[in-house]
Amino acid sequence: MTLKAVTAPRDKTPLSAPDALARLRDVRARTEALAAPLSAEDMVVQSMPDVSPTKWHLGHTTWFFETFLLKAFDKTYSEFDPAFCYLFNSYYDAVGERHPRPKRGLLTRPALDRVMAYRAEVSDAIAGLLKAAEGGKDWADITRLLSLGCHHEEQHQELLLADIKHVLYQNPLRPAYAQKPADPVRKTQKLSWMAYPEGVREIGHGGRGFAFDSEGPRHKVYVGAFQLASRPVSNSEYLEFIEDGGYRRPEFWLSDAWAHICDEGKCQPLYWEKRDGEWREFLMQGEHPLNPGAPVCHLSYYEADAYARWAGARLPTEAELEVMAVATKATAGEVWEWTSSAYSPYPGFKPAAGAVGEYNGKFMVGQMVLRSGSGATPPGHWRPTYRNFFYPPSAWQFTGLRLAREP
Amino acid sequence: MTLKAVTAPRDKTPLSAPDALARLRDVRARTEALAAPLSAEDMVVQSMPDVSPTKWHLGHTTWFFETFLLKAFDKTYSEFDPAFCYLFNSYYDAVGERHPRPKRGLLTRPALDRVMAYRAEVSDAIAGLLKAAEGGKDWADITRLLSLGCHHEEQHQELLLADIKHVLYQNPLRPAYAQKPADPVRKTQKLSWMAYPEGVREIGHGGRGFAFDSEGPRHKVYVGAFQLASRPVSNSEYLEFIEDGGYRRPEFWLSDAWAHICDEGKCQPLYWEKRDGEWREFLMQGEHPLNPGAPVCHLSYYEADAYARWAGARLPTEAELEVMAVATKATAGEVWEWTSSAYSPYPGFKPAAGAVGEYNGKFMVGQMVLRSGSGATPPGHWRPTYRNFFYPPSAWQFTGLRLAREP
Amino acid sequence: MTLKAVTAPRDKTPLSAPDALARLRDVRARTEALAAPLSAEDMVVQSMPDVSPTKWHLGHTTWFFETFLLKAFDKTYSEFDPAFCYLFNSYYDAVGERHPRPKRGLLTRPALDRVMAYRAEVSDAIAGLLKAAEGGKDWADITRLLSLGCHHEEQHQELLLADIKHVLYQNPLRPAYAQKPADPVRKTQKLSWMAYPEGVREIGHGGRGFAFDSEGPRHKVYVGAFQLASRPVSNSEYLEFIEDGGYRRPEFWLSDAWAHICDEGKCQPLYWEKRDGEWREFLMQGEHPLNPGAPVCHLSYYEADAYARWAGARLPTEAELEVMAVATKATAGEVWEWTSSAYSPYPGFKPAAGAVGEYNGKFMVGQMVLRSGSGATPPGHWRPTYRNFFYPPSAWQFTGLRLAREP
Amino acid sequence: MTLKAVTAPRDKTPLSAPDALARLRDVRARTEALAAPLSAEDMVVQSMPDVSPTKWHLGHTTWFFETFLLKAFDKTYSEFDPAFCYLFNSYYDAVGERHPRPKRGLLTRPALDRVMAYRAEVSDAIAGLLKAAEGGKDWADITRLLSLGCHHEEQHQELLLADIKHVLYQNPLRPAYAQKPADPVRKTQKLSWMAYPEGVREIGHGGRGFAFDSEGPRHKVYVGAFQLASRPVSNSEYLEFIEDGGYRRPEFWLSDAWAHICDEGKCQPLYWEKRDGEWREFLMQGEHPLNPGAPVCHLSYYEADAYARWAGARLPTEAELEVMAVATKATAGEVWEWTSSAYSPYPGFKPAAGAVGEYNGKFMVGQMVLRSGSGATPPGHWRPTYRNFFYPPSAWQFTGLRLAREP
Repeated sequence: MTLKAVTAPRDKTPLSAPDALARLRDVRARTEALAAPLSAEDMVVQSMPDVSPTKWHLGHTTWFFETFLLKAFDKTYSEFDPAFCYLFNSYYDAVGERHPRPKRGLLTRPALDRVMAYRAEVSDAIAGLLKAAEGGKDWADITRLLSLGCHHEEQHQELLLADIKHVLYQNPLRPAYAQKPADPVRKTQKLSWMAYPEGVREIGHGGRGFAFDSEGPRHKVYVGAFQLASRPVSNSEYLEFIEDGGYRRPEFWLSDAWAHICDEGKCQPLYWEKRDGEWREFLMQGEHPLNPGAPVCHLSYYEADAYARWAGARLPTEAELEVMAVATKATAGEVWEWTSSAYSPYPGFKPAAGAVGEYNGKFMVGQMVLRSGSGATPPGHWRPTYRNFFYPPSAWQFTGLRLAREP
Repeated sequence: MTLKAVTAPRDKTPLSAPDALARLRDVRARTEALAAPLSAEDMVVQSMPDVSPTKWHLGHTTWFFETFLLKAFDKTYSEFDPAFCYLFNSYYDAVGERHPRPKRGLLTRPALDRVMAYRAEVSDAIAGLLKAAEGGKDWADITRLLSLGCHHEEQHQELLLADIKHVLYQNPLRPAYAQKPADPVRKTQKLSWMAYPEGVREIGHGGRGFAFDSEGPRHKVYVGAFQLASRPVSNSEYLEFIEDGGYRRPEFWLSDAWAHICDEGKCQPLYWEKRDGEWREFLMQGEHPLNPGAPVCHLSYYEADAYARWAGARLPTEAELEVMAVATKATAGEVWEWTSSAYSPYPGFKPAAGAVGEYNGKFMVGQMVLRSGSGATPPGHWRPTYRNFFYPPSAWQFTGLRLAREP
Repeated sequence: MTLKAVTAPRDKTPLSAPDALARLRDVRARTEALAAPLSAEDMVVQSMPDVSPTKWHLGHTTWFFETFLLKAFDKTYSEFDPAFCYLFNSYYDAVGERHPRPKRGLLTRPALDRVMAYRAEVSDAIAGLLKAAEGGKDWADITRLLSLGCHHEEQHQELLLADIKHVLYQNPLRPAYAQKPADPVRKTQKLSWMAYPEGVREIGHGGRGFAFDSEGPRHKVYVGAFQLASRPVSNSEYLEFIEDGGYRRPEFWLSDAWAHICDEGKCQPLYWEKRDGEWREFLMQGEHPLNPGAPVCHLSYYEADAYARWAGARLPTEAELEVMAVATKATAGEVWEWTSSAYSPYPGFKPAAGAVGEYNGKFMVGQMVLRSGSGATPPGHWRPTYRNFFYPPSAWQFTGLRLAREP
Repeated sequence: MTLKAVTAPRDKTPLSAPDALARLRDVRARTEALAAPLSAEDMVVQSMPDVSPTKWHLGHTTWFFETFLLKAFDKTYSEFDPAFCYLFNSYYDAVGERHPRPKRGLLTRPALDRVMAYRAEVSDAIAGLLKAAEGGKDWADITRLLSLGCHHEEQHQELLLADIKHVLYQNPLRPAYAQKPADPVRKTQKLSWMAYPEGVREIGHGGRGFAFDSEGPRHKVYVGAFQLASRPVSNSEYLEFIEDGGYRRPEFWLSDAWAHICDEGKCQPLYWEKRDGEWREFLMQGEHPLNPGAPVCHLSYYEADAYARWAGARLPTEAELEVMAVATKATAGEVWEWTSSAYSPYPGFKPAAGAVGEYNGKFMVGQMVLRSGSGATPPGHWRPTYRNFFYPPSAWQFTGLRLAREP
């Protein structure tokens, strides 16, 4: 790999060095603030292969900057620790061998202190690079990659939260991540339907501002007339599905879905439990009574799809949700909304050149697109063309659904 | 389930009783002819959960007619054997409990003779039903379901061939299914590209003639300009990919695909083996030298996609292949062609009512569409709107690929 | 491997050629009679890795004679089929590569007819060898190996019965192997205790008559005073254990045993089922009401041990059962009786030289000794020093228990 | 369970309260000293189901004292934390439900600090109990159980070391547990053979001084004449076996053993690696060149047995090693020595009454006895009747072998 050849998705407004540095400092500080309520013990454990330890997130986001910025553009930079490239590479084959994902939880060393020192040194080295390189021939590449690194780290902020929630839930003591109180009890709001006419639409990112490569190119799609619910499905609505025997009636479930819930013995969403006749859910604040009006969260695609069929509706496509997001100028939602669209390349899609081209494109089989953002998505991170994606059985992310139907 | 309420996909031209019977007799006889070269021992074994024993195919296709025609419309019919509903139901939850799929190969009883008697008795009873019911109030339903049963049995004819090929391949003796000679050696033909302009197209089945429910409704899609290869990829072309290190270079593979070939230690397609420096393939006629000009067959989606990337091209979408099929008036091809389209419902899709509604709709997650038909597809079975579907790692069907690219 | 160097366990009374031939013909005919009630379909299936298809037993016992007698001593013999050495070798590494055990059920070819032809040709060739070699320099080796081959085939006769019972049980139709009626209903007989004094005893085979290598050498053991029940535990006695909550009370179970029954959800012996309030068991004659006075059969070691603890007794050691067998001049019992003795080499044990040395010695870890023989053991096959052995969870053999206790 | 009814193995010399307290304080302090070189992160991780996190060892040994002493005999004691009984029970079914063993590594809470507080509080409470109860009616029971708790904690000291070694080895950085230098390089000493005559011997614990229940009762065994090597097999000797193709030659291996090393792809002991032509081993001090004269360690039973067969010798029985230990007045060795004896009850064995009866007896199937102690065994913990036991594939303990042979 020629690291000089690495390019990142197009961001047409190059930043000034002070702006770039401020952006970097903000993002890095936010990650560290998210880790602050946790002990070193909390940060080392991996509760399933999909989950990464907090310490690994802290190291990996740093490795991303070190690899794609410092090693590529700073000839004076000397690697913090040669072993870290092996330990903190997530999945970039072009960058070399890496520690197996299911064994991330076995890394008691490097100790947390050393990972925090790594973070500090890399942040400082990038600050130096930004000063030295401003206006030079690499500046456009550097700012593009810096922007990619910051958005990358923001993605890991949400993953870190979903992952530590899963780790803490494994513990029969059901410890809380956050000491602040849970949200107040809400009632389910009245639902209305928004109608959209048929037509050829343009969707996807057109090139202004940052976007991941898989959000483009902007392209035409024909979208038939459709209607969307005014809000996501709530906990109390999902509870009706359960109480109507939803988990015991195969007619609502896709074949893979039915096999999955039978194999796992599932009869309720992840983090829900019925105790002494009362439904409870595990939140970042520990275990609490189910909040009826909050959007139902931690559904798999299978569950979201089954609920929609039970409700006499369907899941929306990703194009429909993008049309809605543009039309309503909605900002990021409370839960990621499963769509019926498989994650696949847009027509004319080309992955970014170099190793960062592995960022998205190689995951384009077997996963479903989610839209809308969640309460755990960092402020400012989301945009209407954003395509999140997970496997159909995954439920540990902040995932729910919104209903769609034909007119 | 009210079996009377069962309806099948629309087939607008109701058959006469003699035509219906002739159609039934033809289809049933063809299945039995396909089983003729096999011993009772060959027909009982299941080589992996995806594969069904030949004897099971013989019984299940009969059960389909018994359940959806005789039990629904013939009050005089008395069930051949009450145990068969349990043994030969494939996946229809609405019809009741069933024998687990991975255990189909444990059914040494009923003996083959008894299954053949079941076939004969059910065929005869349907002949009686057709005579008695012609022109009556159920006639349209009966002919629709008969047509569905015949197409269903034709699908199983191709599955039977793919399955028995897999069974015989497990045997180190590499026995042949057919005694007739293998195809003559072919050279790879010159490849050209066919160009198609952009535009809003209509695809899907519009209602004339038989189609499975998932082929409709007919609907508009926007399709950008594209080019398609004039023929599928050949064995000799695929061999170049292997010899260029295709199975050792992660840059060509989707992430799931790379994990799959590493886990399985795959370095060539199913049924290929290199022996004493010569590439050989297992055919229905036993093991033979690789035929260079024949279409490459028994590729998984992962392999088809990796080959396309190596070749600087991409897989077509299902819409593109349907556009081509209509434009060229092509008949069924030599291999099923993997598309980049996930198998999902067309806009406005409604499964057929009743238990036969489980035929297609419940498989619409995690599978990819294949188009074009294969040399093992029964004559007359295929049409341009036909949507076949399998999971990305599946390779035991007659599956290959055709390249597509942007203009 | 020098096949000439193969020697078998010592049998001090060399047979005459006619006697040897008569013995061979008897054993071979008995195997074929056991297979006679089965169809070719029945004989090809393998219901779990421990089970071998009937057809495989027919071939393997023939391969044993072909390999260790014909290939070793008959220069005129030409191999029936070179592939059979690969297909029908069970576990003799010294003889070469072999077909994997869990895939024995995939061998639809060679067809049953061809395996029967193999049986006939090998039997005839041995008849020729016996005539030609009588009195020659190899005669002692030949008769020793012939005797080993006959005892080996007798072992497979019992395995064949246990295996086909398991195959037929997988079928929800619960087909019977034998048409003859099941045993008459018996009451549980009164149980008495037989007392034996302490002392240094000699156990193991001393060299007169045939024995497998692992039965020797004869050696001294110190055996404390003990008592043995006058008969094995009966079905009705075992039922009391079940009804006393035996399968739900961890205090009776070894740690591995408890994990096993929890993992498997076991709450009764293999082949037992409670249907409409009545306990039933699957026999060679199909499903029948539980016979209260018959010895409980198809227990795992875990179950036998738990029952003994519940009954305030213990399992006997193999030395204790051998002392009893010699003292009482008992002939083979109705069920194999689990002992508390791990299968390990007697002091001074030396495996037979050559490939037949793999017959027993290499299994001497992780398995438990069973004594006494069963109703499925061929007449004349058993002797008081006989050591049968299986893994603790195994239950598909004809295995029960007899209680022991301290005075 | 009536906890008052709990009794521990007989220790005929009741301690005075000050002696008992000194013994307790010594043992508890030694455990904490062993944990001292580790960070909280190191102590939370579990590298495989057999391994327990250091923090769990710290908590479990404390729970043992709390459960069997404080809750049973101290009416004034109030439980430190009701959740701990669930979290820190290892396998005592009679004490109630428990956290699943393979999930011990998910317990980030209670934090290490809180577990250390638990240790301190329980130790202090026992000190109080000892003072208050001395000379009272429970004194004999209390001192017996205190002694059992101390020996139990000593067992966990060795487990803690084996477990943390395995945890640290998972880390590609190969961190050292201890900073002190590795042992000096040793040459393999000359080996001689010690001869023992045949005879009836007494083995097992006779009741003076502490012993675990499974060490008794003392009983007679007949032991034939045998010879034992003067020392365990060394690294350089084991290396000869490897270089002679030992891991590629099935004739040396038990059948289960050969399957195991083929499945795992094993070609050397755990913790050995060949790097740039040099053999290296992972020690508590990190990775070092193989020390030729040190006893070979971390062998499975399978490897020990295969080596012995290759060397033309055999493994000793546990009786032989006990005879030797008594005859030579040897103290604990450098490595645990695998014996050919399965772990089973001595004649007349009765588990201790109450929940502590689960300590040993329920593991008496499928495991092999090891004798002699290791360098990681706490000083004073071992005695000649000591029976350690592990499953045949286990190699993460400090396990090697000594050769035996017939005269």
